[in-house]
Amino acid sequence: MAKAARAAATIMARRPTHTKNRVLLKIADKIEEEASYIKTENQKDLGRAQKMELTNAMIDRLTITDATITSMADGLRDVARLGDPVGSISRTTLRPNGLEVSRMRIPLGVIGIIYESRPNVTIDAAGLCLKAGNSVILRGGSESLHSNQALTGIISPVLIEAGLPKEAVQVVPIRDRAAVKALLKQEEFIDLIIPRGGEGLIRFVVENSKIPVLKHYKGVCHVYVDEGADLNMAEDICFNAKAQRPGVCNAMETMLVHKSIASKFLPQMAKRFIKAGVEIRGCPETCQIIPEAHKAGEEDWPAEYLDLIIALRVVDNMDQAIAHVTEYGSNHTDAIVTSDYQRARRFVREVDSSVVLVNASTRFNDGGQLGLGAEMGISTSKLHAFGPMGVEELTTTKFIVFGDGQIRK
Amino acid sequence: MAKAARAAATIMARRPTHTKNRVLLKIADKIEEEASYIKTENQKDLGRAQKMELTNAMIDRLTITDATITSMADGLRDVARLGDPVGSISRTTLRPNGLEVSRMRIPLGVIGIIYESRPNVTIDAAGLCLKAGNSVILRGGSESLHSNQALTGIISPVLIEAGLPKEAVQVVPIRDRAAVKALLKQEEFIDLIIPRGGEGLIRFVVENSKIPVLKHYKGVCHVYVDEGADLNMAEDICFNAKAQRPGVCNAMETMLVHKSIASKFLPQMAKRFIKAGVEIRGCPETCQIIPEAHKAGEEDWPAEYLDLIIALRVVDNMDQAIAHVTEYGSNHTDAIVTSDYQRARRFVREVDSSVVLVNASTRFNDGGQLGLGAEMGISTSKLHAFGPMGVEELTTTKFIVFGDGQIRK
Repeated sequence: MAKAARAAATIMARRPTHTKNRVLLKIADKIEEEASYIKTENQKDLGRAQKMELTNAMIDRLTITDATITSMADGLRDVARLGDPVGSISRTTLRPNGLEVSRMRIPLGVIGIIYESRPNVTIDAAGLCLKAGNSVILRGGSESLHSNQALTGIISPVLIEAGLPKEAVQVVPIRDRAAVKALLKQEEFIDLIIPRGGEGLIRFVVENSKIPVLKHYKGVCHVYVDEGADLNMAEDICFNAKAQRPGVCNAMETMLVHKSIASKFLPQMAKRFIKAGVEIRGCPETCQIIPEAHKAGEEDWPAEYLDLIIALRVVDNMDQAIAHVTEYGSNHTDAIVTSDYQRARRFVREVDSSVVLVNASTRFNDGGQLGLGAEMGISTSKLHAFGPMGVEELTTTKFIVFGDGQIRK
Repeated sequence: MAKAARAAATIMARRPTHTKNRVLLKIADKIEEEASYIKTENQKDLGRAQKMELTNAMIDRLTITDATITSMADGLRDVARLGDPVGSISRTTLRPNGLEVSRMRIPLGVIGIIYESRPNVTIDAAGLCLKAGNSVILRGGSESLHSNQALTGIISPVLIEAGLPKEAVQVVPIRDRAAVKALLKQEEFIDLIIPRGGEGLIRFVVENSKIPVLKHYKGVCHVYVDEGADLNMAEDICFNAKAQRPGVCNAMETMLVHKSIASKFLPQMAKRFIKAGVEIRGCPETCQIIPEAHKAGEEDWPAEYLDLIIALRVVDNMDQAIAHVTEYGSNHTDAIVTSDYQRARRFVREVDSSVVLVNASTRFNDGGQLGLGAEMGISTSKLHAFGPMGVEELTTTKFIVFGDGQIRK
């Protein structure tokens, strides 16, 4: 499979934007046309899942509804609308010897995606990889194999009809985890592995991969409310960051508040949190101000709750806030609410996270929100991509050099 | 060591360009001042090397001469002169909700360099890593430990004097290879590993690393001489690519010649090669035209000779040439000599190598020659950096977002 994907990648890399877009739009139409077939195949997975006694949350993620169908099709149409980075030439310089040196953006080649339950990742990932001119090998959860095969069963004929190799999108047809291990050893044919799922899956992939991995372990996101901040703005931002969708990686987990505003700000903030059912785990100063707060333990500071729970700490100054983020954060998303020009600039420079925000909710760390269009997930490791990964992050650049007979002295 | 390097990286990342440059210039001066001390320590390594019966080539690479001292010092002065990529802000967009989204260039963090013999890599690598605001852990060959410790012994006091942590540049003080294995497991503290050396070393690092690796296995570089090419230009380029310095990775290993010009071009080219002592291993057509040519076997096409040997094949057309490069090449450096506009453009687009050249020698794949200043080696894997790696490739970008109270709907 990996070898066939490599051969397909060579062909995909040379195909023009309009061919790739036509394929994406055609797949979108076919998904809608074949909705009942897809749902029938999905039922086979669901039947098996019930026997395996998966949790309700897992069954929920596995289920393909009419809304899932529409969202997959619309997602592909969005990707078709994005600009095509492949072939763009930049940073041209003329060297003293007359050589013209540029960088040309090219597809990465073959991308392996390893993910859990959600069959819609099959379509999202395939769409982005195709748009960027790559081949993709998809290895979804074993519990979603029928659904994933149904989806690629729709993609293959569209590729063939457009004169493209069907091996540009392949699903690993084996449920055994040994198949993942084997996949992770194909460094000769695969350029990049992207795992999407829980920390267990990601650690397994990193442990076993000889291929570069783009990953994100967890999002322990902070909002620091600075001395002199607009407290109404701070309240809205912190509430949004924590409660708008607490189960996602860019939700705030820890709030840091400057001591000079704590006694004024925390009661109003706590009222709103408590009304929304948010449990507060605070440092000693917090517990003095908010009677309903539980005492936070050392295990709360690095915790990714993904739930209506917040850790809350009063700090002496911004230096202490930044030191806290550096020690306990996960390089994911951190924000400051401030009215101070110098501290805003310093927070942005000194906080080492993939997205650093001033006076905005952490929930904006998202490819769509930051203007990348669709995304393949958020990378918290720094190599190649740091932050949300869009189409461009599925490409790289090569050097192209035009001369007229230059030789090296 | 890795943990200390991480703490040092946080400090280094915040230091301004002029501090970093002053340190680089000071180290350069100190290396020249302490030349006799460095050479004395180097003698200890050389004494040990003679007992270990290393090859002359290895001893040669290990030896620090006055010329090595000057070249290390001048190299640092060159790096001080380069622009500082850290802190530059680019690609600013204003989102419909008023968020201002940009990318800010930041250091990668902690970089581990694993290399063989040459102690000058210690200085070159340290200089580039410092300039990009990183910490570096250096693990040179066990045979050069005294030399490497002497060099970092010079760097540490300069760092301290400038108010920087001495842990920003550290040498692994243990000769045992187990130390390398331990280093490669510090994924919590190290962001990137760059191995520099032979294929054995690089494979060992890739096999054992949990940290992302930027690597280059080998350079099997091609020049394709097209139908209608300027044959004098082709001769100069091919001779330069093969013979100017045959032992390096960007030297040409295989020459591909269009059949319509073979009988005219090959005799004149062969004459020049043979005069310079280059052994020719040719396809059957080549052997008919050049009586001195040896018959090439299948093992010659993927060979990296690094020597005065060339594989030579006559091809039917450019498609066959590109197919040959795709099958046997190493994604390193490939060139075409042509006068045809369309084929020049198509070769550049379709050849999947880190540097693709038209009418210029493969020997130009080099950070200095392509305008990057000094380089950390050439990457032939596509993630993060593809081609020569300069200061900028030792950095990454984060997203910075300025708002005025935006929350996610």
